[in-house]
Amino acid sequence: MSSPQPTRVGKVGLPPGSLVHVGRRLTEKTCLTLFNFDEQHIEERTIAAVGDAVPYRNRPSVTWLNIDGLHDTGVLAALGEAFGLHPLVLEDMLNTEQRPKFEDLGDYLFIVMRVFMLPANPEGGIRSEQISLVIGPHFLITLQEKAGPLLDPIREGLRAGKGRIRKGGADYLAHAIVDAVVDQYFVVLEALGERIEVLEDRLMTRPTPDTLRAIQGLKREITSLRRSVWPLREVISRLSRGESEIFEEPTEVYLRDVYDHTVQTIEAIETFREVLSGMLEIYLSSISNRMNEVMKVLTIIATIFIPLTFVAGIYGMNFEYMPELRWRWGYPAILLFMLLSGAVMLLYFRRKRWI
Amino acid sequence: MSSPQPTRVGKVGLPPGSLVHVGRRLTEKTCLTLFNFDEQHIEERTIAAVGDAVPYRNRPSVTWLNIDGLHDTGVLAALGEAFGLHPLVLEDMLNTEQRPKFEDLGDYLFIVMRVFMLPANPEGGIRSEQISLVIGPHFLITLQEKAGPLLDPIREGLRAGKGRIRKGGADYLAHAIVDAVVDQYFVVLEALGERIEVLEDRLMTRPTPDTLRAIQGLKREITSLRRSVWPLREVISRLSRGESEIFEEPTEVYLRDVYDHTVQTIEAIETFREVLSGMLEIYLSSISNRMNEVMKVLTIIATIFIPLTFVAGIYGMNFEYMPELRWRWGYPAILLFMLLSGAVMLLYFRRKRWI
Amino acid sequence: MSSPQPTRVGKVGLPPGSLVHVGRRLTEKTCLTLFNFDEQHIEERTIAAVGDAVPYRNRPSVTWLNIDGLHDTGVLAALGEAFGLHPLVLEDMLNTEQRPKFEDLGDYLFIVMRVFMLPANPEGGIRSEQISLVIGPHFLITLQEKAGPLLDPIREGLRAGKGRIRKGGADYLAHAIVDAVVDQYFVVLEALGERIEVLEDRLMTRPTPDTLRAIQGLKREITSLRRSVWPLREVISRLSRGESEIFEEPTEVYLRDVYDHTVQTIEAIETFREVLSGMLEIYLSSISNRMNEVMKVLTIIATIFIPLTFVAGIYGMNFEYMPELRWRWGYPAILLFMLLSGAVMLLYFRRKRWI
Amino acid sequence: MSSPQPTRVGKVGLPPGSLVHVGRRLTEKTCLTLFNFDEQHIEERTIAAVGDAVPYRNRPSVTWLNIDGLHDTGVLAALGEAFGLHPLVLEDMLNTEQRPKFEDLGDYLFIVMRVFMLPANPEGGIRSEQISLVIGPHFLITLQEKAGPLLDPIREGLRAGKGRIRKGGADYLAHAIVDAVVDQYFVVLEALGERIEVLEDRLMTRPTPDTLRAIQGLKREITSLRRSVWPLREVISRLSRGESEIFEEPTEVYLRDVYDHTVQTIEAIETFREVLSGMLEIYLSSISNRMNEVMKVLTIIATIFIPLTFVAGIYGMNFEYMPELRWRWGYPAILLFMLLSGAVMLLYFRRKRWI
Amino acid sequence: MSSPQPTRVGKVGLPPGSLVHVGRRLTEKTCLTLFNFDEQHIEERTIAAVGDAVPYRNRPSVTWLNIDGLHDTGVLAALGEAFGLHPLVLEDMLNTEQRPKFEDLGDYLFIVMRVFMLPANPEGGIRSEQISLVIGPHFLITLQEKAGPLLDPIREGLRAGKGRIRKGGADYLAHAIVDAVVDQYFVVLEALGERIEVLEDRLMTRPTPDTLRAIQGLKREITSLRRSVWPLREVISRLSRGESEIFEEPTEVYLRDVYDHTVQTIEAIETFREVLSGMLEIYLSSISNRMNEVMKVLTIIATIFIPLTFVAGIYGMNFEYMPELRWRWGYPAILLFMLLSGAVMLLYFRRKRWI
Repeated sequence: MSSPQPTRVGKVGLPPGSLVHVGRRLTEKTCLTLFNFDEQHIEERTIAAVGDAVPYRNRPSVTWLNIDGLHDTGVLAALGEAFGLHPLVLEDMLNTEQRPKFEDLGDYLFIVMRVFMLPANPEGGIRSEQISLVIGPHFLITLQEKAGPLLDPIREGLRAGKGRIRKGGADYLAHAIVDAVVDQYFVVLEALGERIEVLEDRLMTRPTPDTLRAIQGLKREITSLRRSVWPLREVISRLSRGESEIFEEPTEVYLRDVYDHTVQTIEAIETFREVLSGMLEIYLSSISNRMNEVMKVLTIIATIFIPLTFVAGIYGMNFEYMPELRWRWGYPAILLFMLLSGAVMLLYFRRKRWI
Repeated sequence: MSSPQPTRVGKVGLPPGSLVHVGRRLTEKTCLTLFNFDEQHIEERTIAAVGDAVPYRNRPSVTWLNIDGLHDTGVLAALGEAFGLHPLVLEDMLNTEQRPKFEDLGDYLFIVMRVFMLPANPEGGIRSEQISLVIGPHFLITLQEKAGPLLDPIREGLRAGKGRIRKGGADYLAHAIVDAVVDQYFVVLEALGERIEVLEDRLMTRPTPDTLRAIQGLKREITSLRRSVWPLREVISRLSRGESEIFEEPTEVYLRDVYDHTVQTIEAIETFREVLSGMLEIYLSSISNRMNEVMKVLTIIATIFIPLTFVAGIYGMNFEYMPELRWRWGYPAILLFMLLSGAVMLLYFRRKRWI
Repeated sequence: MSSPQPTRVGKVGLPPGSLVHVGRRLTEKTCLTLFNFDEQHIEERTIAAVGDAVPYRNRPSVTWLNIDGLHDTGVLAALGEAFGLHPLVLEDMLNTEQRPKFEDLGDYLFIVMRVFMLPANPEGGIRSEQISLVIGPHFLITLQEKAGPLLDPIREGLRAGKGRIRKGGADYLAHAIVDAVVDQYFVVLEALGERIEVLEDRLMTRPTPDTLRAIQGLKREITSLRRSVWPLREVISRLSRGESEIFEEPTEVYLRDVYDHTVQTIEAIETFREVLSGMLEIYLSSISNRMNEVMKVLTIIATIFIPLTFVAGIYGMNFEYMPELRWRWGYPAILLFMLLSGAVMLLYFRRKRWI
Repeated sequence: MSSPQPTRVGKVGLPPGSLVHVGRRLTEKTCLTLFNFDEQHIEERTIAAVGDAVPYRNRPSVTWLNIDGLHDTGVLAALGEAFGLHPLVLEDMLNTEQRPKFEDLGDYLFIVMRVFMLPANPEGGIRSEQISLVIGPHFLITLQEKAGPLLDPIREGLRAGKGRIRKGGADYLAHAIVDAVVDQYFVVLEALGERIEVLEDRLMTRPTPDTLRAIQGLKREITSLRRSVWPLREVISRLSRGESEIFEEPTEVYLRDVYDHTVQTIEAIETFREVLSGMLEIYLSSISNRMNEVMKVLTIIATIFIPLTFVAGIYGMNFEYMPELRWRWGYPAILLFMLLSGAVMLLYFRRKRWI
Repeated sequence: MSSPQPTRVGKVGLPPGSLVHVGRRLTEKTCLTLFNFDEQHIEERTIAAVGDAVPYRNRPSVTWLNIDGLHDTGVLAALGEAFGLHPLVLEDMLNTEQRPKFEDLGDYLFIVMRVFMLPANPEGGIRSEQISLVIGPHFLITLQEKAGPLLDPIREGLRAGKGRIRKGGADYLAHAIVDAVVDQYFVVLEALGERIEVLEDRLMTRPTPDTLRAIQGLKREITSLRRSVWPLREVISRLSRGESEIFEEPTEVYLRDVYDHTVQTIEAIETFREVLSGMLEIYLSSISNRMNEVMKVLTIIATIFIPLTFVAGIYGMNFEYMPELRWRWGYPAILLFMLLSGAVMLLYFRRKRWI
């Protein structure tokens, strides 16, 4: 999340549809898992090649092929051939800096989303990954950059066969994955909310330029999150309004529910942005306040002692004819005068509420 | 209202439609009250279980079932079964961090709103609660997190039988509840307006960093209110334009009236936001002004006495040949000179309008 | 215009349509005047009760009933009955904190506008009042909170019978009233423009925190004006596009003209807002500039005299072996040295353009 | 351009359509010139009265009547009668504070635009004038407040008969005038751009409060320009989309070209606004920077000499038992110590990069 | 990119369609190259005159005519005649300050885009050039201000015959050129991103007024880029939605892909703008912080030594009766007292966290 610019530069000049992996290069092995299920039975397999999934393609039961790891462009090419995917779809799968979008290609839908993940150590930046979905009438293909626990609850649900998940079609399964991605945003938002609270405390007790930089850093993370949620909201809105025939009416109600959650996410993001702006204002005014305080100390000290030093200076002059110098009570009198002047000054400052 | 992030985290990974109470957990007993009325007669009962309301469901007279308290998910499940409610509707009822929305489910409408309540002590934060409505052709179900006096005037009206309330159908009753919720916003806005006036007075007399924090705090409360009113306005606008058949034409005129009130609320909110922004500017400029004043005092004192001290220093030097020191009128002359210099300085400052 | 919150609180809990006067309570008597005219003849009467207007209702000539004063809810109730007005229309007439709106109720149109009035003394705040119009095919009812000179030119025009005013129907007469209200905005805007110019002069010569508060005060008055003009523009736009059949085509051209005037008003308002924002920036930077000037005076004085005082201090030391003290020309030499140092400092400041 | 408020106040209370000249009163004589042309022949006349133009009205060749000077309302009344113009059109022609607009009155179109003119002396404000067009199937009437060189190139083109100008109809001629007005905006924008560059230079070398006022002044001129271009863009967009039948298809391509130019103008205006905002930020930060510099000088001087003066003060004390005062090398030693302290201070400031 | 105003002033007064080159005048020779290809064969020629391209015009194979250099208006006139182009199209080709646009002229489409180029030296400003496309059913004409390497990969692709480029029609070739232009934006954005990172580092270590000016400079470059990308996005959006029949359905999918890239570009631009705004805030607050630090040093020194100097001043007074002066331990006692006072001050500052 540190570099805001997209890294498509390596692709400049290549014809569209060229399968070049754009994004962080990952070294783990590509891993393919396959679920085939209907209400009664369920089959779960790890397969070696995309070709092993082809026989499932035309079965009436639902097939879910999950691919973790994108570095092996051969797998992608095989996938494209086996399922008749458009070259641009394959390119978008590999280009992991995509913004969320939804493309209706007639036989199947293509959805791209971003998943956000909390870092292992609480100080680290939030990472994001791309997840792609290809949804056909009876099959669902999901691609992730790296294996992760995001979809495990869905797998558990499939195995357990509770709820609608085994009864709904591939569209309901796809909805469940979108739902999981959006739920993950709440986890990330909660973590960001905690960081904001920590920053707010620090702002109250001891604001430093580092606090300012931390505020700006959080602002950027939230902007990056925002850039992923807004187009996702648009995607889900279009799906839930029945723009595609693959998503059937009963699933649309559930999509509207997910849509409500994305709107909630956006509202939380906008609130965070406002809170951070407010913190910036408090930071700037606290700097002014401290400067005010410093100035007051200086002014009080200088205003009391500079005139007194002047008086002492007068009686330090070496004129021959200074009658006061010979008075018996001259010294105590002048000390008393100085004391009184200082007290008057202090009273003046108290009345001005400086001390 | 202190934590801006939504608290759905506990639900991550659960299938949609799971009945888990999301929100503050309340310990009071769930309480069910039922009204059944037409223009001539009225019946009012407290019932023990949702099942007792089922026989009323198909009567031509209007039935209003009010449920206070959401912690007993069993009641919700029974409600869902008795009235054939969609699982997502039940989930939304329990998830008390919903934003206002309206869902047309064919046989019935589902409306979610937020009620705002003033705290018992005038310093406290404003609380908000969720109120859900299910509106069918002859019945109305309302759910609140906690029993409160919000709907008491409507109950009184029903018992007294004055006005349209007994003549209108379930849709008119639903409108009356929406109207009561919006009227409550005016109460809250008036309280916020008074707080803003108090803050404005404090800003004029003695602004402190606490004033700034109070301004920011009010801003957040108003933002939270705003987040509830904007979608409610959208909900009422859609209802009043006849989007649903359950709301009949005579009621739509009344809904347009409520719509006007929400627009008025929004305008008041936007005005408050502008006023608070203006107060922030006044706060910041008053800090600058005070620093200016401090600086002026310092400069006046230093500019008058530093040169005079220098003069005294000259005649404190121990040179052997300093003829002035031996002059008879040297000391009074130098005192006079100092007095005149000081006076000239003061005149200069007066001309610069510093004093 | 001092309290930004709407004052509907007194109505909370009452059923919609309850005739309670919301707004400032006025003590003058309600006054009803009636005009009945066509191209040839004109009749002008002051009537005692609404009932006296009923016989005119179905005449082919145009009838204009004007009511000044809203505190007598009995008059309103009679009006509702005599002309078959919807209870919500009557309620809106009484609730004098309405935003401008237009409601088509089939047989008649209902328009609410706000009139702005300059205060008697030039320092006072701008007052606003509500004016309601009910327009039927041959009659027009106008309601004002208080009798005022706003509609006098129209009455004069009717009596004189010049122009289209006697030839057009009730719709043309209604247009003339809307036109008078919008023209009144120009009067108020001109007064505000003069106040802004006065403030600008004060800002250039001697900005004080009061100037800032005056800027903020003007901003609020303009915001309040803006809140009335924007919805009025919408109302006139809808009328001029022929949304209602009561406004006939020849009058629509005139309404488009009024519409252009509201747009001009809005542009003037937006310009005023920009000008006031610019004044705020000038104010803030003038504070910084003055602080700069104060700092410069302090720095010049301190930088010249502190080193010189140090030199004087050296020769004020009581060491036994300080050969300079015994030199014949030591004292004049050191005085010369001090003079030169001061001159060098002054040259340095001149080169830095501080003086 | 100095008074932002519209000056319609003199018309308040008059019925719409009253012919009163609103705007600056000009004393030159009204001047009427007439062109009648087709591809083969061309006739150019100065006529004495509007009536002289009537015989040309129904000729198949194109007639262009240009009127310079609006103060003679008799000419306008005659024009209205001769060409059957709507009273509101005549009123809009006289009211020279109109915003650009376009009105389709069936038989003819009415277009109002604003022309901007550079002042004679480069320091002066930019003036603006109103130009009105009435476009019929075979005739074009143009009205300007004052004779000017704006339309001279078009007259030259007509006389020379080059290009499409003699072949196109009245609509093409009207387009050419709109094009000339928009081209004039580029001239004004270039002049404003030069002023901005001058201001930028001044901002870099020696920013004063006058610079700030000049920035604000330019901002207002640009806002005023913007207020004229935005509605003109809307006018041209509607004409180029074929909203009126008087503008025929071949001319619409040319109008789209003019439309592109207005969009370019708007972009330049928006860029200027951004540049001026950036200049404001630079101005404010340069004030802060200069205050910083002043503070540094003060702090360096004070920090070096105040401690040294203190040391000198110690050895100026008159205690009887101060052994150092009698040491042979006491005086040189203390001088050396002071020199070293000063040097250490200077090194410290250098390390802090203050000097 | 230094002058924000458009330079159309030289054209004011000329009739539309006049072929005058508006833009920087370039001295290289105009160079015409021609490709003619279908799936099987390909022909590549450099031609001397536009006339040589005419025979290719009606062939079923695709013809691409590329023209580098615009200064020879004769070539443009010949082109217009040979391919029947509208005079305004020719004018737009020559006017190289166009904003991106797309015009459907029935037989052919006209597209204008801007190409951005990195300067040779890394400190220089980003240059931009105009590229125009005329797309007919079987031919494509491209015009550039100057020969450049932008289209070389496409030429290579044509020669090699890989991918869709030889199979698609003129519309696919046009898409490839639009794609190349958009890809070039990513290159420029990456370079701007690197400059921003350099500036951010400088901001952290040593911010100067130059840093502020560099931030403002980058802001302007990004604004200029933005002004080119937003209308291009609109152009591509309209093409990809099938607004023109020349772009056939298979190519539309590829255009949607390019559209996604422009949206990504816009998001990167908006992010850059936010980052630069954040940097401005950091800059301003770092100035305040440094002033704070300077003030603290001054206050610490002054607060410690001014009171001590006063004490020394007291014992420098020449009163005859000052018993302390004669005490044996007076001098050491007063030194100790001074030391302790200074230490107490330092402790106070430490507790205030000033040191």
